[in-house]
Amino acid sequence: MTSVITLLTDYGLEDGYVAACHGVIARIAPQTRIIDVCHLVPSGDVRRGAAILAQTIRYLPAGVHVAVIDPGVGGARRGVAIEAGDHVFLGPDNGVLSWAVQAVGGARAAYELTNEDLFLKPVSLTFLGRDVFAPVAARLAVGHDLAGVGPQVPLDRLAAFPAPTSLVRDGAVEGEVLSVDHYGNAQLSISAGDLATLGARPGTTLAVRLGRRQLSVPFRETFASVPPGEVVAFTDSAGLIALAINSGDASQRLGLPPGAHVRLSMAP
Amino acid sequence: MTSVITLLTDYGLEDGYVAACHGVIARIAPQTRIIDVCHLVPSGDVRRGAAILAQTIRYLPAGVHVAVIDPGVGGARRGVAIEAGDHVFLGPDNGVLSWAVQAVGGARAAYELTNEDLFLKPVSLTFLGRDVFAPVAARLAVGHDLAGVGPQVPLDRLAAFPAPTSLVRDGAVEGEVLSVDHYGNAQLSISAGDLATLGARPGTTLAVRLGRRQLSVPFRETFASVPPGEVVAFTDSAGLIALAINSGDASQRLGLPPGAHVRLSMAP
Amino acid sequence: MTSVITLLTDYGLEDGYVAACHGVIARIAPQTRIIDVCHLVPSGDVRRGAAILAQTIRYLPAGVHVAVIDPGVGGARRGVAIEAGDHVFLGPDNGVLSWAVQAVGGARAAYELTNEDLFLKPVSLTFLGRDVFAPVAARLAVGHDLAGVGPQVPLDRLAAFPAPTSLVRDGAVEGEVLSVDHYGNAQLSISAGDLATLGARPGTTLAVRLGRRQLSVPFRETFASVPPGEVVAFTDSAGLIALAINSGDASQRLGLPPGAHVRLSMAP
Repeated sequence: MTSVITLLTDYGLEDGYVAACHGVIARIAPQTRIIDVCHLVPSGDVRRGAAILAQTIRYLPAGVHVAVIDPGVGGARRGVAIEAGDHVFLGPDNGVLSWAVQAVGGARAAYELTNEDLFLKPVSLTFLGRDVFAPVAARLAVGHDLAGVGPQVPLDRLAAFPAPTSLVRDGAVEGEVLSVDHYGNAQLSISAGDLATLGARPGTTLAVRLGRRQLSVPFRETFASVPPGEVVAFTDSAGLIALAINSGDASQRLGLPPGAHVRLSMAP
Repeated sequence: MTSVITLLTDYGLEDGYVAACHGVIARIAPQTRIIDVCHLVPSGDVRRGAAILAQTIRYLPAGVHVAVIDPGVGGARRGVAIEAGDHVFLGPDNGVLSWAVQAVGGARAAYELTNEDLFLKPVSLTFLGRDVFAPVAARLAVGHDLAGVGPQVPLDRLAAFPAPTSLVRDGAVEGEVLSVDHYGNAQLSISAGDLATLGARPGTTLAVRLGRRQLSVPFRETFASVPPGEVVAFTDSAGLIALAINSGDASQRLGLPPGAHVRLSMAP
Repeated sequence: MTSVITLLTDYGLEDGYVAACHGVIARIAPQTRIIDVCHLVPSGDVRRGAAILAQTIRYLPAGVHVAVIDPGVGGARRGVAIEAGDHVFLGPDNGVLSWAVQAVGGARAAYELTNEDLFLKPVSLTFLGRDVFAPVAARLAVGHDLAGVGPQVPLDRLAAFPAPTSLVRDGAVEGEVLSVDHYGNAQLSISAGDLATLGARPGTTLAVRLGRRQLSVPFRETFASVPPGEVVAFTDSAGLIALAINSGDASQRLGLPPGAHVRLSMAP
């Protein structure tokens, strides 16, 4: 039995949508603490939601983690509950949970949310967060049996994003922009370990290829190690390499949207 | 006695104003749970605040609900406490509470907030949320008698917005844009029931008249039932008809601000 | 022992950064209430963070108050814990805490955060909020001895912003714009008391000099005492004089950024 519920959505903060979910939970599970992971995920950006949850999950308490980012809301997309580590994840089966599940050791069991006794009725097809995910999370938090939410789903049938990858070859490492945070820092699918295999360590200089451009970028311990306005590579708080501009927006100025291809090597 | 307080304001999130209210409550009522309904109501937009509270209230626990949206702050506007359903509503007597009170069955009793012993002193005329509404809410939450906040107000003297109305005539239903959410969905003062009287059901097509323009709009179960970029009508999570553009901003693209007149009929 | 932690950062709300801090605290101190003071401080704006905390602190419960705004993150800036009033303040030693400490009576003792046993490991140099400040705050909240965080720091060695000052001379009071809130109200380093020494009371008219311009501005009890669109001076909720435009953005329209020099006198 758990007593923490976390919420990740693209509902924004300008309406009462998040509050409705809090209220539904508070009515069913008045003692349960709610942690808002983020509600400003760009509308329908499942990948961005998946990245935020995956990078936050190991700092969150054991609990029920709800992620509702579903461009296909109201369609045939099933809702699932996935057991992994100390956690239960709830959300649409569209991959939004997949990286977080992976980050805590992978799924042990999964269930489809079909038991309507646990829902709020009538279910609004456009607000499953309020009518399906929040009440199911609350009932799990107060001790409802996970297996009672619906039939089991074979683990290999769960939607999953391919793990972000990097490729080390020919003295370089290739990857992509995984996520851009609100500072404009572009987090790459390249880890500090990848760079170490090239011999790059903080203090050295990297050759960064973005499309046809090539930049010479200092690899430092933090973005604050270069003067304001300058580009820098550093190991971010998730252990991944980020390209940043001290006091500036690297994603915008360098043209680095999520998915952009990046190649790093030691500068000659 | 209640142990939940909810807050709805136009204070924004860029200052410490909301936190001051949380702090005042936590000092008086340390065990009380606080739910933030919304703090991004456009500055002074009483109607929008009223709509958000009314559509959220039935998902909130019994408690004290504070709504401070008051373009006339510091003027002669009295503060009131209104008892309705399981709830107590606190706010300026300018209509911001009226739709929510109505939504939970109407007012049973109302009081003017005049008992200064319950306030924080000195009262800042420009921050009644912190100095009047938050401390009164907290004292009610820990058991203070509602009748002790001040003299009773006759229910027919409470400020109220006229209920949003729709008019079915000549095979059409007329109404207005009630509220626009952060997706740009325009929620109408027309219910699914109104449309049913015309014979319109999900799957049919509507003739939508906006001023002089007339559009043919599919009526579907959700906004996701049409391709991205297309206009759609659906029954939203409050049971009202909304005009939306899948993955787009209908209010902006169709010119549908709150108050705009809309007429729906069955497409020929 | 305290059971409230407050958080002030420039992390924004678009990522999972704030949630990671909440999570770290909830894992160590599950019973502790967390109050978010503000997370939308402009990136690296230490002075703005200091002003928000100072003006909110006397409405917050006794507790541990964390303020992480640190343009020099990852540099040599030490973290400190400062005991003042009923409170413990945690943050980088760059002045962000100084005004709040002053507002509650000044520091009684200060310690450098060096005891790594209290940190989350490995410490990410770019996310000290998650790995240093949040876990230390949580451990203090559950009873860890303050003196155990590290060696004492002499109080006169703490970084501090000079207190915002005003100067009354020649029948005028001079000061500066201290802070601009999200309404665009420009709060001055000039108090209601300063104005009183000039004989200015609500109802009188002020001569306001901004650079070379001079305006005639009514001094009123609230910004709502003038018609929408008009400039007004009033005593704000922190007891300071603010220049505002009713339903408008005074900072932008009058050119009043933080730091701008302002001179007030009685209008002739």
